[in-house]
Amino acid sequence: MSSVNGYVRNAWYVASWAQDLTPEKTFAITILGEPIVIWRTAGGTLYALEDRCVHRLAPLSLGRCEGERLRCMYHGLLFDPDGVVAEIPGQEIIPANARVRHYAVIERHSWVWVWMGDAALADPVLVPPAVGYDDPDYILGHGQLDYAAEARLINDNLLDFSHLSYVHANSFGAGPQFAQTQPTIIPLERGVRVQRWIANTYGASNRKSDVPVDSWQSYDFLVPGILLMWSGNYPAGTAQALNHAPPERDAAIAGLNFTSQAVTPLTDRTSRYFFSWGPHRRHGDEAIRDGMMQLAGVAFGEDKVMIEAQQRVIDMTPDPRIMPTSHDRGVTLFNRLVQKLARADGDGAPVAIRSGSDARDRQAAAAS
Amino acid sequence: MSSVNGYVRNAWYVASWAQDLTPEKTFAITILGEPIVIWRTAGGTLYALEDRCVHRLAPLSLGRCEGERLRCMYHGLLFDPDGVVAEIPGQEIIPANARVRHYAVIERHSWVWVWMGDAALADPVLVPPAVGYDDPDYILGHGQLDYAAEARLINDNLLDFSHLSYVHANSFGAGPQFAQTQPTIIPLERGVRVQRWIANTYGASNRKSDVPVDSWQSYDFLVPGILLMWSGNYPAGTAQALNHAPPERDAAIAGLNFTSQAVTPLTDRTSRYFFSWGPHRRHGDEAIRDGMMQLAGVAFGEDKVMIEAQQRVIDMTPDPRIMPTSHDRGVTLFNRLVQKLARADGDGAPVAIRSGSDARDRQAAAAS
Amino acid sequence: MSSVNGYVRNAWYVASWAQDLTPEKTFAITILGEPIVIWRTAGGTLYALEDRCVHRLAPLSLGRCEGERLRCMYHGLLFDPDGVVAEIPGQEIIPANARVRHYAVIERHSWVWVWMGDAALADPVLVPPAVGYDDPDYILGHGQLDYAAEARLINDNLLDFSHLSYVHANSFGAGPQFAQTQPTIIPLERGVRVQRWIANTYGASNRKSDVPVDSWQSYDFLVPGILLMWSGNYPAGTAQALNHAPPERDAAIAGLNFTSQAVTPLTDRTSRYFFSWGPHRRHGDEAIRDGMMQLAGVAFGEDKVMIEAQQRVIDMTPDPRIMPTSHDRGVTLFNRLVQKLARADGDGAPVAIRSGSDARDRQAAAAS
Repeated sequence: MSSVNGYVRNAWYVASWAQDLTPEKTFAITILGEPIVIWRTAGGTLYALEDRCVHRLAPLSLGRCEGERLRCMYHGLLFDPDGVVAEIPGQEIIPANARVRHYAVIERHSWVWVWMGDAALADPVLVPPAVGYDDPDYILGHGQLDYAAEARLINDNLLDFSHLSYVHANSFGAGPQFAQTQPTIIPLERGVRVQRWIANTYGASNRKSDVPVDSWQSYDFLVPGILLMWSGNYPAGTAQALNHAPPERDAAIAGLNFTSQAVTPLTDRTSRYFFSWGPHRRHGDEAIRDGMMQLAGVAFGEDKVMIEAQQRVIDMTPDPRIMPTSHDRGVTLFNRLVQKLARADGDGAPVAIRSGSDARDRQAAAAS
Repeated sequence: MSSVNGYVRNAWYVASWAQDLTPEKTFAITILGEPIVIWRTAGGTLYALEDRCVHRLAPLSLGRCEGERLRCMYHGLLFDPDGVVAEIPGQEIIPANARVRHYAVIERHSWVWVWMGDAALADPVLVPPAVGYDDPDYILGHGQLDYAAEARLINDNLLDFSHLSYVHANSFGAGPQFAQTQPTIIPLERGVRVQRWIANTYGASNRKSDVPVDSWQSYDFLVPGILLMWSGNYPAGTAQALNHAPPERDAAIAGLNFTSQAVTPLTDRTSRYFFSWGPHRRHGDEAIRDGMMQLAGVAFGEDKVMIEAQQRVIDMTPDPRIMPTSHDRGVTLFNRLVQKLARADGDGAPVAIRSGSDARDRQAAAAS
Repeated sequence: MSSVNGYVRNAWYVASWAQDLTPEKTFAITILGEPIVIWRTAGGTLYALEDRCVHRLAPLSLGRCEGERLRCMYHGLLFDPDGVVAEIPGQEIIPANARVRHYAVIERHSWVWVWMGDAALADPVLVPPAVGYDDPDYILGHGQLDYAAEARLINDNLLDFSHLSYVHANSFGAGPQFAQTQPTIIPLERGVRVQRWIANTYGASNRKSDVPVDSWQSYDFLVPGILLMWSGNYPAGTAQALNHAPPERDAAIAGLNFTSQAVTPLTDRTSRYFFSWGPHRRHGDEAIRDGMMQLAGVAFGEDKVMIEAQQRVIDMTPDPRIMPTSHDRGVTLFNRLVQKLARADGDGAPVAIRSGSDARDRQAAAAS
């Protein structure tokens, strides 16, 4: 039914910030080209249906929440939360085909997630371990941006941080290291992990330091397009002492922060980008968070200008081809994984969740 | 030549309100995907031509009225009102193919109508018996709305008043009866008739009553997409006394009013909707008319929101299918009739006008 | 690679006014559907490359000028001015296919010209002999307009001045002669020449005269779409005395002026139109030039309204056909020449420049 291909369907896609779903109000979004209506009942339960009445294709998102049900406000058909029509005004018999598609939907880590594959296969265990804005350990701001570009281009951007040295030279002040050196890239079952020490640096933006430090950055990029990253400063010499292995998160002496980012394909040429960012409570406060969000506003705007321009060039190119560089290892690994999982979508159960280490990282952070 | 199919060509389409055609000024409209220029001479005669110069396809609507003729203001070709080129500046000989299509055009009931089929078959008898804003019996306001939706969706809307209980619950205050009960539907030669008693009601909007009344509503929906409706309140008990047959229009005790509405397909995704509404002179005045028009502004805006959203959903649906309900009898009857007449368009003479009863109704009203 | 056909590729296209290329700033334009980035070094050299990074297709026009080179500011690839990649950050080896297309570019007559064919064939001799705003003999204003129409329609307009009698009846006040009589049309190797005496006239607009004069107008219209026109007033009787042959430019007694105009196809439905106009220094001053530019603003706006409307009609016409008139000789000659040259584009060397007479005219003017 979708017109958008090349993405994993058996995966949780971010549809909204949790706070943007008002009880008994419909919320409309298109994901992978499929119109979806989501609503929260007065009791707090979330439901998601195909946003297209079976009668004459009016959007149910113009409808009315009635208890657990949703009524189409064109001619009054009433839908159970599983998509089955419960009432057709003025008609006794309800045909067997009077139903719309039902989507699994779940709220986790301040996001509302929709499973775009077979609802029977939807597994909460596969929700990526993001950090919500209600997390007790972090002080997070959050926002979102709509892109006139396909999601894959944003994913590619997030999988190759060498762009920081150019696109964000003035905003993040990232320095040339991101382009000159390669991060460590580790394949995960449902993504890739990207890690990097920058030794003996004064840092930049929100992690500036008066004395040289070793700066650590690690992120997982998980299907369908979820970036979970933490960073921290360590005493100079730590990278060498650890032989460039990952540090203990708790041992950060400054600048410990977290960002969750999600890329949701709306149509084949539009996307929504959700992001949060902020310091660990022991390493910052609301003022620091506000400064980081201001910076994010500038920097993510720089990405948007570049990626939407890239999309326009692609659109006027009859046979677009790319020429990967050595910085594209993460991009290539992830895109191959997406292709593999997308092919597997037809075969039944989704590929199991990524290996446990990042989950352990997350648990450690939550427990700290 | 048209890119818009599925509509009857041998029919009169509303192109404009009569007052919007200023003498010696061109008026441009696209109907069924065909660009048309209409103009009124100083003497009052109406003409309509293909709005596309035979020379280099400039629109004649940017041209200049010269007596009975129209001059293209790009390179000066002069057109007779039958579409034949009368003059090519700087050239003696006029080729035999120097002509554009001529359309039959007529002014009736405050509307300018264009016949989209063979002009030789255009028959004024087939102009639907609307009520113009110059009618002596009614005090009518009028307006128009442009839709980003195909005309068929608006026709469908007007053929199933069960939407009044939902789309217009707050504006017209129509109550649940429109969805809970079925109207009487009578096939006409060129349309369908939809009639309904609502017994023992206090009415709504412009037909509210302090005491219970029986409320009558009857409309014809005629090809290509013309709705002609009158309504009136009768003493409680009238519906039963008449065994739910139609009442005499003159016997209405209150709320007698009339509305003419026309749906014109511009392109396959855009339409123009013309409407008038107001009370019979014995049952209202200019203030009542103004209140009705204010209400129409709200309610027709509700339709536009729903139908344009429906169109957007249809456009993102690869293989759109509908599931008719029992309220769709009128819709189905009319659309089948359109199909039948559209097929007959190739065969010559248009199907004769609908049976005379509605015309008699109209004459009775005019004579009252 | 281009999606725009039917134009000559081995030709110089105007990309910009010279003053709009700031040193060390990129300039982006799409010509014939191909995205192009142009830049001027600090030393004044002009370069033009395909505006599409070989890596991930980001536009190089968002890049940074670094000496003679241009750096893509997405992931930092550095391009030599011939389009070859000189540096890939974080990567030692540069693949042989790491290059983008290079375009020949030249600045002449206040315009920056790009050669859209094989750069090896680019010949400065083929730059049409326009008059720049820095010309010592003329006092020229200049401007540009973007069109939502294909370039061919603007070329057609400029090749048939019979439209002056209609489109510009009120602005240029051109009178009926342009439509009633034919100009002399002379084929050139790379264009057509259009010449006309209007004898015993009081002139119009900027060439109005208190006494009758003979008014001369001559323009070359050269591939790809360059109009070079001069006009002047001569004593009444001159046309007859010369047997309607061209006059000496220097013998003009008043109203001697020049206009250079260029039509550049951006995409198959958009174009950019560049123009200059003004008096010869002996026949006018800055005030006269300003009045002419004001008039041009009105008149060229009239063309834009007509041609964009013509394009809209063409776009809604399934099988658009034209019916040429006797005024279309110039249009037809030029379009046939374009077809011939476009076919020859594949064969190697471009067709030689038009015969020398107009170049001589130009030299005479420059020497006067």
